[in-house]
Amino acid sequence: MRKLYVIGIGAGDPDQVTVQAVKAMRRAEVFYVIGKGEAKRELVEVRTAILAEHMDREYRVVEIADPPRERTVADGQYREVVRDWHERRAALLGEAFAEHDGVGAILVWGDPSLYDSTLRMIERVDARTPLDYEVIPGVTSAQALAARHRIVLHEIGEPVHITTGRRLREEGLRPGVPTVVMLDGETSFTGVPGDDVHIWWGAYLGMPDEELIEGPLRAVESRILQRRNELREAKGWIMDIYLLRRGVG
Amino acid sequence: MRKLYVIGIGAGDPDQVTVQAVKAMRRAEVFYVIGKGEAKRELVEVRTAILAEHMDREYRVVEIADPPRERTVADGQYREVVRDWHERRAALLGEAFAEHDGVGAILVWGDPSLYDSTLRMIERVDARTPLDYEVIPGVTSAQALAARHRIVLHEIGEPVHITTGRRLREEGLRPGVPTVVMLDGETSFTGVPGDDVHIWWGAYLGMPDEELIEGPLRAVESRILQRRNELREAKGWIMDIYLLRRGVG
Ligand SMILES: C[S@@+](CC[C@H](N)C(=O)[O-])C[C@H]1O[C@@H](n2cnc3c(N)ncnc32)[C@H](O)[C@@H]1O
Ligand SMILES: C[S@@+](CC[C@H](N)C(=O)[O-])C[C@H]1O[C@@H](n2cnc3c(N)ncnc32)[C@H](O)[C@@H]1O
Repeated sequence: MRKLYVIGIGAGDPDQVTVQAVKAMRRAEVFYVIGKGEAKRELVEVRTAILAEHMDREYRVVEIADPPRERTVADGQYREVVRDWHERRAALLGEAFAEHDGVGAILVWGDPSLYDSTLRMIERVDARTPLDYEVIPGVTSAQALAARHRIVLHEIGEPVHITTGRRLREEGLRPGVPTVVMLDGETSFTGVPGDDVHIWWGAYLGMPDEELIEGPLRAVESRILQRRNELREAKGWIMDIYLLRRGVG
Repeated sequence: MRKLYVIGIGAGDPDQVTVQAVKAMRRAEVFYVIGKGEAKRELVEVRTAILAEHMDREYRVVEIADPPRERTVADGQYREVVRDWHERRAALLGEAFAEHDGVGAILVWGDPSLYDSTLRMIERVDARTPLDYEVIPGVTSAQALAARHRIVLHEIGEPVHITTGRRLREEGLRPGVPTVVMLDGETSFTGVPGDDVHIWWGAYLGMPDEELIEGPLRAVESRILQRRNELREAKGWIMDIYLLRRGVG
């Protein structure tokens, strides 16, 4: 059976890679890279920096082009469209595995368990042609955000909710439930009502352009919007995440 | 100003430490260890193994005894009791900083942003005597759990909720909100009703005695209870975590 490592590499700083991840990388002969288009060249650069620093021998890199994906989708069809896209990606990945020999590895941004489709694809490939695959956990962008703001994500005894911009818009922010919001291209924090909300925001965490803003939501939201626009214009893309907390009582 | 690193070291496997954590450790001269009593000797051993493997020169270890803590607390007083305990711990930590020179470090289990009191203590010490402290994120036990089960924590587009056993008992499990439960000495999963719940359970993740059980909650809960009891009796302590998901629709 083909051996494959699915390796979390942390959320931006190449040094966020774990020793376990480095050891797994060194056992791999072929790295499968699932293309993200040119826009996010820096994300590819983080992976390249990690490989360049830690690999001590020759390895092959196999790039797998992303099948096209519908970007504007009615809310009700979101899952279906994503599932179909995963299916097409899985087929391409399966073909790539079949074409190349040796221990494989896939480097995943942050941790593979959070808003990443790699494991779903591998599961699909595995269902057709059994694979011997292992997952190496990584530091998530939620952990990176908290570290840079030097905070615990919750007050004592509280839960932590991790969600998407889409869900935040649908479900709102509950008091006493600190909520980490990822995948939010629509700055959904501006739609959260009330004067009792605090925000801890971070963009390009762990990367040279890292930016942090923190404060009462109503006091800092326009500053975040402005910086977010400036940065996105300057770089051509943005990757940001934030924690919201509505006070209790 | 005194420099201090608060370093997440991962949740059990010494190799889960990041390169960034190793670099910070190597800049430190004094490691402050906040005592957890003898029971969890193995947790101390993980820290010792990490230091032994990665430190390339002399360092000092300063142990700080834990002040006693009330274990049985009425639900309404939980926060207050914990806050008071943090205050006493912070005072001891402040004294230790004052007594010892050089760059300091504190190694934190998993990630410092999740159910860990180190940052709250440091904040208190910092408020009296300003410190120059930096936080290095680590892999959490939630990530370790997902990796060992080779799963994504959520279905496509869903949120992830992270909570305590206490909270799960109070609030229950909502459909379509995958919930990671930590700090659950009371096996609260047995109190979650319904036949539509799946559980992914793990104990001593990343450690030699690691155990994993997964399946429909009603089908596997008695097996988990039994193994949990056996393991706790054999070792004298247990550390476990699980993901619950109630199907939607
Ligand atoms: C497709 S998800 C991948 C999450 C990843 N698996 C993790 O564990 O963090 C991408 C989202 O993660 C967040 N993110 C990832 N890396 C980030 C970084 N360095 N700075 C800010 N946000 C980041 C952003 O919210 C982004 O929209
Ligand atoms: C005080 S909290 C610390 C959490 C830690 N800061 C983290 O990021 O994972 C301790 C709880 O974490 C979970 N935990 C930590 N390490 C674990 C491991 N190796 N195996 C199973 N559960 C673990 C258990 O639920 C335990 O009760």
